[in-house]
Amino acid sequence: MLIEIDFNSEEALYLQLRNQIIMGIATMELREGDSLPSVRQLAETIGINMHTVNKAYTVLKQEGFVKVDRRRGAVIAVNLDKMKALEELKQELLVVLAKSSCKGISRQEVHVLIDELYSEYGSID
Amino acid sequence: MLIEIDFNSEEALYLQLRNQIIMGIATMELREGDSLPSVRQLAETIGINMHTVNKAYTVLKQEGFVKVDRRRGAVIAVNLDKMKALEELKQELLVVLAKSSCKGISRQEVHVLIDELYSEYGSID
Repeated sequence: MLIEIDFNSEEALYLQLRNQIIMGIATMELREGDSLPSVRQLAETIGINMHTVNKAYTVLKQEGFVKVDRRRGAVIAVNLDKMKALEELKQELLVVLAKSSCKGISRQEVHVLIDELYSEYGSID
Repeated sequence: MLIEIDFNSEEALYLQLRNQIIMGIATMELREGDSLPSVRQLAETIGINMHTVNKAYTVLKQEGFVKVDRRRGAVIAVNLDKMKALEELKQELLVVLAKSSCKGISRQEVHVLIDELYSEYGSID
C-alpha cells in the first residue's frame, strides 16, 4: 500500500498516517492480519520521525484497528465492537453535521454524499 | 447560551468552545447577527485563558461562522459558500466513514444516524 504524506497540509503528520491506514483498511488494500512496516522502516520510507510513526500506530491501536504482535510488530486487527463504534460515529457526526446544517446543506445532500463515499469502501450495505 | 467545557476531555479546550458555538448556531440558540461575549468576559466566565477563547474565535472566523466587528466584537455571521461547505463536508466524512465502514457499520445505519442528528438542527430538509 502506498502511503502519501502531504508535508504542506495543516493536518498533523501522525493523523495523516493514521487516516491513510484506516482508508487502506476501508478500501481493503489492507486486510485483517496484514503486517504493517516496522516503525523504523516506515519512518525511513516516508522521511519522517520515528516518533511520528509510533504515535500513529499507538492511536490506531487505541482505536481498535491494529494490534502489536511481539514477533510480527503492528498487524491489522479490527476490533468490531459495534456499539462502541456507533457511539463514536455519533459523536463525530454531531459536530460535522452541525457545521453542514449551519452552512445550508440539506439532509438530502448529506445522504447523497454518504452513498457516494460508502460505495468506495468495501462495506456491507 | 450556556457554554460547557469538559476539563477532563482529551479534546482541546479551544475546539470544545468552537464546537459548542457551531452547535449553538445549528440549534438556533445563536442567530445571525448575535454578538458573542468579549474574549475577556468569556475567558473569565468559563475560567480559561484568554488565548484559548481567542483561538476559538479565530478558527470560527476562518471557517466562516463569525466575523469581527470593530465596535461589537465577534458576531455570528455564517458564510454560506455552499460549494466550499460541501467540499469540506466530503473531506471530513471521508475518514469518519472509512472508520465506520471498517467497524462493520452499514450504510443504512449511517443514514439512520444522519436523520436522527439532523432532526435536532434547524436545517432545511
